Amino acid sequence: MEQMLLGASPAELRKRIRSGEFSGPTGGLARGHVQANLVVLPRAWAFDFLLFCQRNPKPCPILEVTNPGQYMPLATAKDADLRTDLPRYRIFRNGELEAEVTDVTHYWTDDAVAFLLGCSFTFEAALLAAGIRPWELAAGQNPPIYISNIPTVPAGLFSGRMVVSMLPIPAGQVARAAQVSARFPRAHGGPVHIGRPKAIGIQDLMCPDFGEPFVLKADEVPVFWACGVTPQIAISQARPEWAITHAPGYMFIADMKDSELEE
Amino acid sequence: MEQMLLGASPAELRKRIRSGEFSGPTGGLARGHVQANLVVLPRAWAFDFLLFCQRNPKPCPILEVTNPGQYMPLATAKDADLRTDLPRYRIFRNGELEAEVTDVTHYWTDDAVAFLLGCSFTFEAALLAAGIRPWELAAGQNPPIYISNIPTVPAGLFSGRMVVSMLPIPAGQVARAAQVSARFPRAHGGPVHIGRPKAIGIQDLMCPDFGEPFVLKADEVPVFWACGVTPQIAISQARPEWAITHAPGYMFIADMKDSELEE
Repeated sequence: MEQMLLGASPAELRKRIRSGEFSGPTGGLARGHVQANLVVLPRAWAFDFLLFCQRNPKPCPILEVTNPGQYMPLATAKDADLRTDLPRYRIFRNGELEAEVTDVTHYWTDDAVAFLLGCSFTFEAALLAAGIRPWELAAGQNPPIYISNIPTVPAGLFSGRMVVSMLPIPAGQVARAAQVSARFPRAHGGPVHIGRPKAIGIQDLMCPDFGEPFVLKADEVPVFWACGVTPQIAISQARPEWAITHAPGYMFIADMKDSELEE
Repeated sequence: MEQMLLGASPAELRKRIRSGEFSGPTGGLARGHVQANLVVLPRAWAFDFLLFCQRNPKPCPILEVTNPGQYMPLATAKDADLRTDLPRYRIFRNGELEAEVTDVTHYWTDDAVAFLLGCSFTFEAALLAAGIRPWELAAGQNPPIYISNIPTVPAGLFSGRMVVSMLPIPAGQVARAAQVSARFPRAHGGPVHIGRPKAIGIQDLMCPDFGEPFVLKADEVPVFWACGVTPQIAISQARPEWAITHAPGYMFIADMKDSELEE
């Protein structure tokens, strides 16, 4: 990754993404600023999805919801365009993944409602600042991700199991990791589970549903957080006529600072 | 008030209210249990109102939203009926207050969506437990209520100014009061303003918009919290074809405990 990108502001990064100059994953960029999961749905599905988020705040913590048809967020960033400012999008038709694209201008409708949801990068940054450095964060890898057996609370046709990400935390730092992440309820908050993968339906910790296999070190405890991929499972269950999401790892870079989410 | 009522459980109180045996204000009843503001709207207005709540969490902290047509809450109470279990309701037509009634069974529609919002009783109980005893709480009075000049963030046609309640807090306890109430974000959370009524558009503190005139003592600071009457202003602005709310002071008594709202 270019050094220039690492120092770029959120507005500069969005401009480069919009122009096609940058189309990679956004992890590690615009440090200190919030990144967001994106879900876009037709107005007719928006109440049920907003209710799904309200009932499942850990996997779906709302940062902002746009008015129908509006593609410029108001609370999280200025002069942004949600149709062009993410490096990669997913298009779903009737719950099936149809395509991955870099611009959704032609998919956007007059009644499209965009949901921006908090992302794990915010609490991961807080963990790093607290001296908690799980290997995959340090190495810039994505954490392993699992489909747990924890049910979400349904709303309308939206339902499904909760997706979780796992960080291996040194045993002596687990309590601190829980405490530090809990300060960011709008970025998934505290862990949903600590220590017993089978208790949440994960049979083989070493083989995540997404991400690379890995080995847990002897002094590490697996700690699980709700993951912003959960809505994509709920969309595949609900089968709305269309939906747009970010592609995992290719997030919306907001102007909002991580510190603004601390509670 | 009967001594028997003061010791009654939430389920017992709802039964007495449902039967018409009790129809008074609910302040002081079922101590330790959550009470809730109620807003009911047709499904077609529910997305905008849910979005209004999401954008204005201090005046409109969501405890639960029912599925369309359902009058039995799931998260806040068991075996409750939102059509009969509040002692007094308000019926709005096109934003105008039409009637106050004790049963809304005949107003409930197949597409009615009920919103239960947290109430100040929860943080007031926490203040009392922390040794902070403003006069009107001790005396069982309702606090003075003002229409501030703080704008709510609009959603659809819902908009308007924030309604606030005021407690006169001894100067030495103001910081503690802010801290204690902030632990209950789903019951209006921390104050929205401390100390300068004119800064939020309150010209004469002694003459509230609702409630009795009073005198601030020399050592007291006026502390303002967002109030659950705010949605009623927003409804009068939006003018939905119909809406049902609780009558101020006549709340829904939930099974949920205040302690479950502490964060």
